[in-house]
Amino acid sequence: MSTAQVRERHNPAGLTPAARRFLAANPELQTPFLVLDLDVVEARYRQLTSAMPRARVLYAVKANPAREVLQRLADLGSSFDVASPGEIDRCLKLGIDPARLAFGNTVKKERDIAYARSCGVGIFTVDAEAELDKVIRQAPGSTVYVRISTDGAGADWPLSRKFGCSPGDALGLLRKAAHAGLSFGVSFHVGSQQRDLTAWDRALADAGALVRTLSQEGYQAAGVNLGGGLPCAYREPVAGIGAYGQAIHRALARHLGQDFAGEVLTEPGRYLVGDAGVIQTEVVLISRRPAGDQTRWVYLDIGMFNGLTETLDEAIRYRIGAPPGRGAPGPVVLAGPSCDSADVLYEKSGYQLPVGLRIGDRLQLMSAGAYTASYSTVWFNGFEPLRTFFVSAAGPVTGTPSAQPQPGTRATAPDRQHAHALER
Amino acid sequence: MSTAQVRERHNPAGLTPAARRFLAANPELQTPFLVLDLDVVEARYRQLTSAMPRARVLYAVKANPAREVLQRLADLGSSFDVASPGEIDRCLKLGIDPARLAFGNTVKKERDIAYARSCGVGIFTVDAEAELDKVIRQAPGSTVYVRISTDGAGADWPLSRKFGCSPGDALGLLRKAAHAGLSFGVSFHVGSQQRDLTAWDRALADAGALVRTLSQEGYQAAGVNLGGGLPCAYREPVAGIGAYGQAIHRALARHLGQDFAGEVLTEPGRYLVGDAGVIQTEVVLISRRPAGDQTRWVYLDIGMFNGLTETLDEAIRYRIGAPPGRGAPGPVVLAGPSCDSADVLYEKSGYQLPVGLRIGDRLQLMSAGAYTASYSTVWFNGFEPLRTFFVSAAGPVTGTPSAQPQPGTRATAPDRQHAHALER
Repeated sequence: MSTAQVRERHNPAGLTPAARRFLAANPELQTPFLVLDLDVVEARYRQLTSAMPRARVLYAVKANPAREVLQRLADLGSSFDVASPGEIDRCLKLGIDPARLAFGNTVKKERDIAYARSCGVGIFTVDAEAELDKVIRQAPGSTVYVRISTDGAGADWPLSRKFGCSPGDALGLLRKAAHAGLSFGVSFHVGSQQRDLTAWDRALADAGALVRTLSQEGYQAAGVNLGGGLPCAYREPVAGIGAYGQAIHRALARHLGQDFAGEVLTEPGRYLVGDAGVIQTEVVLISRRPAGDQTRWVYLDIGMFNGLTETLDEAIRYRIGAPPGRGAPGPVVLAGPSCDSADVLYEKSGYQLPVGLRIGDRLQLMSAGAYTASYSTVWFNGFEPLRTFFVSAAGPVTGTPSAQPQPGTRATAPDRQHAHALER
Repeated sequence: MSTAQVRERHNPAGLTPAARRFLAANPELQTPFLVLDLDVVEARYRQLTSAMPRARVLYAVKANPAREVLQRLADLGSSFDVASPGEIDRCLKLGIDPARLAFGNTVKKERDIAYARSCGVGIFTVDAEAELDKVIRQAPGSTVYVRISTDGAGADWPLSRKFGCSPGDALGLLRKAAHAGLSFGVSFHVGSQQRDLTAWDRALADAGALVRTLSQEGYQAAGVNLGGGLPCAYREPVAGIGAYGQAIHRALARHLGQDFAGEVLTEPGRYLVGDAGVIQTEVVLISRRPAGDQTRWVYLDIGMFNGLTETLDEAIRYRIGAPPGRGAPGPVVLAGPSCDSADVLYEKSGYQLPVGLRIGDRLQLMSAGAYTASYSTVWFNGFEPLRTFFVSAAGPVTGTPSAQPQPGTRATAPDRQHAHALER
């Protein structure tokens, strides 16, 4: 199915009832902030395991490392893809079994591999011989996945040449791993927010060929890791998770065979948490430059450096909610609040907002739960990192306060009675 | 003087004795970290006030908002350009007179303008009528600078269309400010790390014309704000500060006249702190892809998301120090440690590092004191924000601990006896 043919809309993920209640109950709460509905995370996890019953889910912690998210997914039985000792420690402190952790970053300090192994982590990913050598030295008995490169075509946040090796180089690494007594598998990543369902087929063709070659040499692969790439509901339509599941299932059968006995891993990040989040932001300034120009510059209190890094090159295009009763849509450029001129969000993507939009109005950036809060800078321009509030229909969730309200202003305490939320 | 003609090297700012002592005394201190020599900040301040005696210096706090930096500059008599209530509060808590603060961000919430005025801040910058209206409402009696746009040509980190209005629109804003009883001036920004010394001349021609027009209408400008743009010593050579001072002095005389009675403001950020900093980083992985390729991929433990945001589009090109005895230089691509494929630092800029470079070697990113520590993300991929250690030949300086060593690893305590440094 080509991207152009995709007409089935992924769940548009408007405001959930719990998020809507939270925003309604806290109209004065100082923006910007992220509201994350943990029930959506759970729903996505269930939808994914239903669509891909063959796969073991490893949540890519980097997408949103909040403890509340990790806990909810851990309770559902998820495994976790971690990128650093920091992420390992956070998972372990939540009581997550280290057997459920995979150290998926291909760039690891040797002492961090040793640390991970000492904690009980048993799965590592590599794409270079020097990295494999570190794993052989520090993590005997573990399983190593060798990551092959893909072209990333069809992805909104594509993966560059930074990761993955050629199938030819991978074969050498896999043989070396096998000879060293490690279990091994093949991994890849088709690019984040991948909208082309055939992308997995192309990568699995390479992976399948490697698995067969090794099998002919007497070495059975422990598994295949499908990486990430499953989408959430940004501005452009994407297929539903069922269509992804079917396309991937067909590709697995075609290239690995119905009788493949190894494990199938998938590493969703964006898919599980993106649609769960909505960012509330305030319009700080509207200007026309030159005066009278049809296009308005709309400056928000969130930008590239306090949560919206993925607007870099306008790669990720959030749906935007505006107040009702503000008239017909008209063209805008959207920019952040910092003094940095790189902090322009959308200039070329044809965004429109109501012509009657006013300074002080609040906008909602939809499906903003992934790669936002943890991307915030610590204090650029004196702005505090993006705060997160967690909501759930089931009742209050635990959390620990993190960022403080910005000095010199006051944040209204969130109405916990209504919203079952705690600031973290 | 054209950029190509610039042969005079800005002080190349190799390791200072204090920074060298600190690194030598702490060979095992966990990387990455920034070492900032406060004496260099002081030296730059003195050089600038000597080169531009007519100008009042407002340090752009955003470049490095560390309290130690602000305190040293405050002690020298500097004023400060602040971007937010957070930066205002930090300055005031250090005892800095609010009369020395200017709120230079053109994108301000109205309540933040009111807060700043209530604190005693009396200088504001605007580039749009709605923003001017906020200042008129909330800060009567203050001085407002109207920012005109420049093309940013010649700058390594140019300013886009995000800021500044046309001289024609500025005239209308200046008249409105004057009619409202505000003091007023003209400001601009020629782009950060500006290597073309004629850039100020072009902007001052516009500013001078506005000042003369207003004067003919009976309104005398309170000042002209030259913005930032003064450079530090990255890879490409730049002129010395004396040459900048002369070029700007000539342009001021040409376009505002020798008898201009208003204040001249300058807002250096990068110039004052850039050369004061060196980032110590470790080589995590070296790979060739495909195997045997001449170019090595060198992965560091610092990248786009924990301090090196300004490598975006390879705009800022740091000089890099490598260990001696590692052979002749050879081509490299440099990348950061995160799982994000955008985290590639230099691929097109022709960087070279010794062919014998090894995993575990430490590299120094020189002149990295500006726009690094405060640009770090809070916890992306589980990496802690960039730590800063302050050194000074004069002895210990005060500071407060901030980031903790990364979980799962140990940071050797810095040798304070030798290095007179405190972590913040």
